[in-house]
Amino acid sequence: MTERPALEIITIGNELLLGETIDGNSAWLGRRLAQAGIRVARRATVGDDAATIRQAVGEALERTGVVLCTGGLGPTRDDVTKPVVAALFGRELVLDEQLLERLRQRFRERGLEMPASNRTQAEVPAGARVFANPRGTAPGLALEDEEGRLAILLPGVPHEMHALVELSVLPLLRERWPRRGRPILHRVLRTTGMPESALAERIEEVVAGLEPLSVAFLPAVTGVDLRLTSWGELEEADAVRAFDRAEAALLEHIGTHVYGRGDEELTDAVAALLTSRRLTLALAESCTGGLIGKRLTDRPGASVFLLADVVAYADEAKVRLLGVAPATLAAHGAVSRDVVREMARGAQRVGQAECAIAVTGIAGPSGGTPAKPIGTVWIAAAVGERLEDRHVRFGGDRAEIRERAAQAALALLWTLLRESGT
Amino acid sequence: MTERPALEIITIGNELLLGETIDGNSAWLGRRLAQAGIRVARRATVGDDAATIRQAVGEALERTGVVLCTGGLGPTRDDVTKPVVAALFGRELVLDEQLLERLRQRFRERGLEMPASNRTQAEVPAGARVFANPRGTAPGLALEDEEGRLAILLPGVPHEMHALVELSVLPLLRERWPRRGRPILHRVLRTTGMPESALAERIEEVVAGLEPLSVAFLPAVTGVDLRLTSWGELEEADAVRAFDRAEAALLEHIGTHVYGRGDEELTDAVAALLTSRRLTLALAESCTGGLIGKRLTDRPGASVFLLADVVAYADEAKVRLLGVAPATLAAHGAVSRDVVREMARGAQRVGQAECAIAVTGIAGPSGGTPAKPIGTVWIAAAVGERLEDRHVRFGGDRAEIRERAAQAALALLWTLLRESGT
Repeated sequence: MTERPALEIITIGNELLLGETIDGNSAWLGRRLAQAGIRVARRATVGDDAATIRQAVGEALERTGVVLCTGGLGPTRDDVTKPVVAALFGRELVLDEQLLERLRQRFRERGLEMPASNRTQAEVPAGARVFANPRGTAPGLALEDEEGRLAILLPGVPHEMHALVELSVLPLLRERWPRRGRPILHRVLRTTGMPESALAERIEEVVAGLEPLSVAFLPAVTGVDLRLTSWGELEEADAVRAFDRAEAALLEHIGTHVYGRGDEELTDAVAALLTSRRLTLALAESCTGGLIGKRLTDRPGASVFLLADVVAYADEAKVRLLGVAPATLAAHGAVSRDVVREMARGAQRVGQAECAIAVTGIAGPSGGTPAKPIGTVWIAAAVGERLEDRHVRFGGDRAEIRERAAQAALALLWTLLRESGT
Repeated sequence: MTERPALEIITIGNELLLGETIDGNSAWLGRRLAQAGIRVARRATVGDDAATIRQAVGEALERTGVVLCTGGLGPTRDDVTKPVVAALFGRELVLDEQLLERLRQRFRERGLEMPASNRTQAEVPAGARVFANPRGTAPGLALEDEEGRLAILLPGVPHEMHALVELSVLPLLRERWPRRGRPILHRVLRTTGMPESALAERIEEVVAGLEPLSVAFLPAVTGVDLRLTSWGELEEADAVRAFDRAEAALLEHIGTHVYGRGDEELTDAVAALLTSRRLTLALAESCTGGLIGKRLTDRPGASVFLLADVVAYADEAKVRLLGVAPATLAAHGAVSRDVVREMARGAQRVGQAECAIAVTGIAGPSGGTPAKPIGTVWIAAAVGERLEDRHVRFGGDRAEIRERAAQAALALLWTLLRESGT
């Protein structure tokens, strides 16, 4: 493996040092550059202070030779990155007439006159490459000296920075480093319903055989995500083939727990099954309070299958809206197997839906008893005549218990749908 | 204003440079230190590489004299912060028997034997101050040389780091800097129902009279937050008095739009009014899909007032579950004034609740028409006999439209409750 080309990142802004803004730009750049086979050697964050910016940029150029700065390119006098870096390279700021006209045009299109302060944004260091900003007023800039030291200046607004990186910075770096490193690539498989330790045991042998890919276990309230990583040993096409082989091997062992890849949600898997089979769904929620409905309707397309969600928070609502028998509630309490089953059947009936999910439990922080401590949840799922229930005791705080309960209920329906499918 | 004492922060870990982890520790430290009157002069992030850590820590000690490092204190061989910094100070690592016993105890309490690798966590640089970690295995460490240069090493796990800062690091820094700077303090007032520009105009004169406090407008899907800041000109007690005066002056002008302070939510304000007046609530949601119910039940205590939430996603569900008249749906469509009013009345009736909220709209990305484009939402709120509706056209994507619709519906009920209150 060849040593990867490297650069340093400097993010600029008092709001970063004060912690009012979390530096998401550095993380985004780290991921994007890793994918492009470029290493981030080091990062720094400095305030809107000319001397410190000058010092930090100077050190990075001395050390690594290439520095990418974000922030401090706005039109106000707080924004000093451009004159400071221009001075460091011994360049004057000159007015770029074309850029000025583009800025004026931008304001005109919005029916506005350009404020005088924005004129400084059309000034660029002599000899700099200027990258038009498709989403804002501050252009990207690149300065290179005779010894090949390169400073790239980008605005700090994330979506403007992202666009400039894709359109201008990555092409520039590819030009500079035609033989750059192999990319660091990831593939994530998302699992649910199996704790990390059990999962690790089940796939121990498979994992050992996946080299040079590494596997990380990332537990979350939704389940455990498995992140496969190719750390630059493979070319992109080979890494994709290795991911495919690894995925196939893992699915053989834990296939019934893998609901998606990347950022796919369990709701996407459930939605896909319901939609393709033209089945309809109704929900009956108690402790999750609308969370399952919310999650299913987060993405478009839920209206095809989701008919209704009855959040019956009070006992009387369970009786009146879902037809739970008062005798069942009296005999077993609201958090019980019998009630959750009646809730599921009630949801099917009142929603006139083929499938149902029901949840009732104690999310806390109060309401727990020795027999039914906080975290006690009953879930049920129905597909036609078939009705399955499950009793779980979740850990965590109120929010975590609710999220875990919603995920477990969706997982139960997902399993039933897969078992009942063709 | 005296110059604030300053330090530098170095966060350590390959996962930070690769962007797999966002550096929230730096932001948290920035806020916490600003509150304590200590300035962060500069930040750096480096990978798990001994030479780079040594260089970065050395520079920071040379430049600012005090450096706070997080990360790289775990039990694996990736974790090199401690030996590197010990070497930089010319100190040997020695086994701390007390610390070793505490570690063993920690594992014993969990019924586990301590893995051999954890033994290295009981080794500390000779002469270092050792801070017991109440939440994990890696202790905090502080090394000082004869010239007063100070390096503080903390684990990177956020809740462990937070505890060590509160318990040990802030006391140490207060001891070092008894005459430290005045704190930077914030107070946030949360508003809804008024766009940023209108709000700014309405309070323009008040804001001008608040010096030395500054006011920032922070627009979000929930409304506009106003952040008042005292930038270190005032002692803490004076700043609090200035915040109180500023808040009183602002409330005179925009009081009907201010629902809370800090991280209070509009749902908290609604819950407080319903609970104190012993009123009950039922919801009828369409495009928000359970989001309002989810938000109201995010915090405990909702069972006192929230009886039911009927998410009637399909038209037939609106008829069957909420009693919306088929004729109304046929004449006006599901997204209409008449339907949202019938939904609210239906929610009161089927939920047997005194109050109701109803929402119906088009969240997109499909389903829009020229007459009812995406973002068209009807909301209604009822308190007893009184029923108010509102028609809004929200911008943004599906998630934003849903969040804005939920917030507007809650705001309508909140306004009605305040108007109908004593």
